[in-house]
Amino acid sequence: MNTVTSYKRIEILDTTLRDGAQGEGISFSVQDKLAIVRALDELGVRWIEAGNPGSNPKDMEFFQRAAKLKLEHAELAAFGSTRKKGVPVAEDRQVQSLLSANTGAVVIFGKSWDIHVTEILRVTLEENLAMIGETIAFLKQNGRAVIFDAEHFFDGYAANPGYALSTVKTALASGADRIVLCDTNGGGFPDAIARVVEEILYALGGGSREAEHEKGSSPPPVEAPGAVLGVHLHNDAGMATASTLMAIKAGCSHIQGTLLGFGERCGNAALAEIIPSIELKLMYRCIADGKLEHLFSIARAVAEISNVAVPDSMPYIGASAFSHKAGMHADGILKVSRSFEHVEPYTVGNSRRFLMSEVGGRSAIAERVRKIDPLVTKDHPAIAALAAKLKALEAEGWQFEGADGSFEIMARQELGKYQPLFAIAAYRVVSEHPARDVAAYCHAWAKVLVDGQQEIAAAEGDGPVNALDGALRGALTRFYPQLSQVRLTDYKVRVIDGKDATAAKVRVLIESTDGVRTWTTVGVSTDIIDASHIALTDAIEYKIIMDIERRFKAYL
Amino acid sequence: MNTVTSYKRIEILDTTLRDGAQGEGISFSVQDKLAIVRALDELGVRWIEAGNPGSNPKDMEFFQRAAKLKLEHAELAAFGSTRKKGVPVAEDRQVQSLLSANTGAVVIFGKSWDIHVTEILRVTLEENLAMIGETIAFLKQNGRAVIFDAEHFFDGYAANPGYALSTVKTALASGADRIVLCDTNGGGFPDAIARVVEEILYALGGGSREAEHEKGSSPPPVEAPGAVLGVHLHNDAGMATASTLMAIKAGCSHIQGTLLGFGERCGNAALAEIIPSIELKLMYRCIADGKLEHLFSIARAVAEISNVAVPDSMPYIGASAFSHKAGMHADGILKVSRSFEHVEPYTVGNSRRFLMSEVGGRSAIAERVRKIDPLVTKDHPAIAALAAKLKALEAEGWQFEGADGSFEIMARQELGKYQPLFAIAAYRVVSEHPARDVAAYCHAWAKVLVDGQQEIAAAEGDGPVNALDGALRGALTRFYPQLSQVRLTDYKVRVIDGKDATAAKVRVLIESTDGVRTWTTVGVSTDIIDASHIALTDAIEYKIIMDIERRFKAYL
Repeated sequence: MNTVTSYKRIEILDTTLRDGAQGEGISFSVQDKLAIVRALDELGVRWIEAGNPGSNPKDMEFFQRAAKLKLEHAELAAFGSTRKKGVPVAEDRQVQSLLSANTGAVVIFGKSWDIHVTEILRVTLEENLAMIGETIAFLKQNGRAVIFDAEHFFDGYAANPGYALSTVKTALASGADRIVLCDTNGGGFPDAIARVVEEILYALGGGSREAEHEKGSSPPPVEAPGAVLGVHLHNDAGMATASTLMAIKAGCSHIQGTLLGFGERCGNAALAEIIPSIELKLMYRCIADGKLEHLFSIARAVAEISNVAVPDSMPYIGASAFSHKAGMHADGILKVSRSFEHVEPYTVGNSRRFLMSEVGGRSAIAERVRKIDPLVTKDHPAIAALAAKLKALEAEGWQFEGADGSFEIMARQELGKYQPLFAIAAYRVVSEHPARDVAAYCHAWAKVLVDGQQEIAAAEGDGPVNALDGALRGALTRFYPQLSQVRLTDYKVRVIDGKDATAAKVRVLIESTDGVRTWTTVGVSTDIIDASHIALTDAIEYKIIMDIERRFKAYL
Repeated sequence: MNTVTSYKRIEILDTTLRDGAQGEGISFSVQDKLAIVRALDELGVRWIEAGNPGSNPKDMEFFQRAAKLKLEHAELAAFGSTRKKGVPVAEDRQVQSLLSANTGAVVIFGKSWDIHVTEILRVTLEENLAMIGETIAFLKQNGRAVIFDAEHFFDGYAANPGYALSTVKTALASGADRIVLCDTNGGGFPDAIARVVEEILYALGGGSREAEHEKGSSPPPVEAPGAVLGVHLHNDAGMATASTLMAIKAGCSHIQGTLLGFGERCGNAALAEIIPSIELKLMYRCIADGKLEHLFSIARAVAEISNVAVPDSMPYIGASAFSHKAGMHADGILKVSRSFEHVEPYTVGNSRRFLMSEVGGRSAIAERVRKIDPLVTKDHPAIAALAAKLKALEAEGWQFEGADGSFEIMARQELGKYQPLFAIAAYRVVSEHPARDVAAYCHAWAKVLVDGQQEIAAAEGDGPVNALDGALRGALTRFYPQLSQVRLTDYKVRVIDGKDATAAKVRVLIESTDGVRTWTTVGVSTDIIDASHIALTDAIEYKIIMDIERRFKAYL
């Protein structure tokens, strides 16, 4: 067994706050950016590229406030371009703004594809080299660590290898601490990326053209003298993750990407799916000790701040990444876990799930029902009945895979371990416009029946579902006071069949908490209020059931 | 320039209907499956693996109905496993069900990882080889083309190369037409996948260990005698696309995956992102002539039937795949398109978009506003005002990137090319329970003002938004009769900030059509009815504006 210090280290630069912000639908407040910096620092990336102080006034405010953060592992980097043509570097306002961001490091991008120099920037090839060299030298004189992003390097190297190489040689000679080869258009293949990385290491005098991957699992670092070589890859051909890992095997020790992979067009290399492969498969280190098993939750924190969902199918950290639906797979996993899992889910903080579904098989259903009754086997008649019911409801648009609360209520009904705890006799929800102070005004009343007694309550709300939730819980709290602790923590709506538009079915998923536990329930209807009412009813009922189980266990 | 016949052909097997159906949330009716078969046949894949007739009665019904389809390019394949242990193959009911599916081809999976044989199947290594060989030979005797999926091949070959190899040698000797190496757990790296492919081609006597990728862009086919070698890769390490392409470069000429990439856990290799790389970059052929430019729309048809969304960031076919948000990128693209695009969007049926956003830059905004007024430049004061307004609204949760109708109305307001066409004086939407016949009953009325005249109308609906839509259009049709042609074709709801649950803001996107054109509008509010009312109002207004432009152009 190796000790930790014997591992090679791969340095990570996360650019969620800069390149990630170019993703469609992504927009960060200063507060959001500070919260993401804290999350990435906790994970332990080496650099956080946090914005372009010259192009966005919000970014300058961010850098002022970020200077007060006490970061444990990461260092902030400002991002900008080389000086303008014909302007002395010390007088270039964009370069000056990079200094005033007051970060320890600055990332500078420069053109390395000749067509970009002559057609887009519209300067001579020589002037572009001067712009790169002078900008880097000036920032070094001002005490900054400089990371040079050679924009479009792979396309440039294919078109004009001599010129592309001269841009990174100029950067290195001018003092750049990191040379980063970018696949800006994102169309690269992993074999080509790896080959170019090897050639550039060789050309910069630091390494050998021998492919490292022939040598086994843990090659020594291959670095150009004075500079670490890195890659920054986009995902336009769906291969940024693979190409980044192949670049590491070819000798790179610095990689750039965004934690969740979002960014311009098809996004950047997704660090959350690269980090586990580096640590668990290449056996290198790249984040802080002990943090890999927090990857699942840190990625979710960043997703929440960014207002995006972590795709369920995302490698390693997706909700479905270790979910087994095929009956045969569930059966295999219960015998030998590595039979259908490439790594253990806990290593990245994820967990294994057996999905409740028509093709899920009775083993998986029985496994979950044993939580209610440990003696149930897969041959119990209730399991067959439950499988049939799941199948019928799924055909109507229901989904119990993410709705544990609703699944348990249904399972209890089949097992005969259920009796109704309340009934909703009637409700009425009204939305009207115009209204005083707000655009629209919502109110609701609901009448409930509990053990022969009736109660009615009314509530206002920020929307119709909020009003109905208030009225229902208001009426039921008289009978079940613990409901006052419950609050809804997430509410999701999915239009199941878009083709009929507003008359289509909607599926509502509601996540609730009582401060200790969290549970999810589901409702489906053509009417969003009705679907919400079904999910709310299950959410309330499940809370009461959990309390009965906890407090009256001895009687059950 | 090569002629078409000189291209090497890569054979595609799509398993959306079998492995794809293992994806979380995926469930197909027989009708859905038939529709997907037609879409895949139109695209021109070679094989469609359509289900397991032995495990699912719905699949048997499907095969009976599918036999009547007239397919132009594709052939159907049934999927199943090797015979059970100790059962003569001709008496094995699962094998019999494969014959009764009556397809030209059958895909058989067999174990090639020793631990799966002994620990999961619990048979001897020799019995497993007999199960593989006898099943394949029996199906061949019955006239079927046989595709052998060597399950867990890569893990098995790493653990016990001799045994793994003996399983594929047995399959080949028993008459299998295709030998497919599977990375069932999906954790493989592209370099390792490619190396194993080369070794197996060599071991089966068909090829050379020399990597084809050193030879240039168009290597000759390398095939084992009598069998075509293929791969079936899962995406658990995020590299299925890359590994599939590297396997092709290593000599495979058959690949398996699902069009959109969905499948068990993290999904299968996504054919929609692999096909364009094969045709545009490796310069091989793999689908029907002229169909690559229909990939965008065929993928959307399959997504719609499967009830999943095509991820916006999906390579080649995502809505954002050619969307430019950074001002500098938009500027570059307008000069030289390949400056920020790895392929031309039209080649796959996609299109370029410039996103309206705070970082989008005034060039991109001006580009879109010129549709309304061709003389507007990026220095026009309305452009700066519009940029500021977009920024403020985006901070509140609005998004105009996908809402052309709402964007145009807002742009017209800034340009002074707008006057109100109607006002909604009041509305009221009521949802109540219980109701006769349905779970909940929804009705609405709305009062509108047009040019000093007032009209009120009421409507029932399948849900509150449907009722409100009916009431609003009912009242306005008196003034604008063309509104009777309008219908809503899609309705999407996004909870913007899940943390406050039902009191959180929601964003509603509505797609409408008048049978000729399609447009999208947006609304944001804490109240879903209010958000829908805003988007509905824009949708109606935009229809009237388009008609004015079309019919009264001469006066404008």
